[in-house]
Amino acid sequence: MKITVVTNNPHKAREISLFFEGVAEVTHVALECPEIRHDSVRKIAMKKAEFAYEEIHTPLICDDTGFYIHALRGFPGPYAAFVQETIGNEGILRLMEGISDRKAHFETAVAYADGRDIRVFSGKIQGRVVRPRGEGGFGYDPIFEWRGRTLAEMSPEEKNRISHRARALERLRDFLAPGR
Amino acid sequence: MKITVVTNNPHKAREISLFFEGVAEVTHVALECPEIRHDSVRKIAMKKAEFAYEEIHTPLICDDTGFYIHALRGFPGPYAAFVQETIGNEGILRLMEGISDRKAHFETAVAYADGRDIRVFSGKIQGRVVRPRGEGGFGYDPIFEWRGRTLAEMSPEEKNRISHRARALERLRDFLAPGR
Repeated sequence: MKITVVTNNPHKAREISLFFEGVAEVTHVALECPEIRHDSVRKIAMKKAEFAYEEIHTPLICDDTGFYIHALRGFPGPYAAFVQETIGNEGILRLMEGISDRKAHFETAVAYADGRDIRVFSGKIQGRVVRPRGEGGFGYDPIFEWRGRTLAEMSPEEKNRISHRARALERLRDFLAPGR
Repeated sequence: MKITVVTNNPHKAREISLFFEGVAEVTHVALECPEIRHDSVRKIAMKKAEFAYEEIHTPLICDDTGFYIHALRGFPGPYAAFVQETIGNEGILRLMEGISDRKAHFETAVAYADGRDIRVFSGKIQGRVVRPRGEGGFGYDPIFEWRGRTLAEMSPEEKNRISHRARALERLRDFLAPGR
């Protein structure tokens, strides 16, 4: 079976390709998909997959990730990338000054379209917003702590194993190759 | 000539209807349009109009508004509504603590589709981010100062006369009825 990952990020494509070893042959295409402005990453990923399938007519995966800080009512949510580019982690920490509820989660939604149907699988990781630590990762990784360490303090392999994206991809793999 | 305003906000429809008195007969329809996630309100309004025209096949207007704080690299931009609902004006003021460059602007883009073409007209208003003042308006109005007063300190009529949306609508009116 062949699956195309729709992404501009070749690194992400490779990560997914390793993930599906033995289940599917993964290629990637850098197709520009219009993204909807919506609070739900599941809905965003689904609409991207719908659009992409109309363009390339082959089984494919699209994904989307959000970062939700509970005390900030879900901010920055699906706009995590824009918020990272504008106010950054410094801005997030300013907003969290003096706030004791530090809970936050990442959510990745992976949408799989095969022409018959579009299925969406999501994965979450719950953690806490902390002062930056660690040299790895990117984006919010240094300020997101999971079980005592930030994502930026983990090796890429470890992060890929426990991440929100990994959890979503696992669910998709179980769907494609049940009981494997 | 007849124009349909695509909006869920009947108040906005009435404002636009008054604006076009003598130029066009304005009705409104509450059609749900998918919104793209994009940094440019011009592009967002254009895509909404494209979608809406496919649905209703009659000359129509769609609009979109962003709020851009210069020292925050354009945050919250087109995500102004989501940011207002999550971190609100209190969050914005926190992010601006100790920052001397207070410049900000609103931008509204109005897209007009008539089946031949989609034209986009935009209007801006430049001002400053200040501590909240005034009882009128909504959203960012109390913290946006223009020529010594916040938008929340103006009457609705005055605000409608000088606003970013008014400026965009004027440009559209000049296009529809030149030399009027």
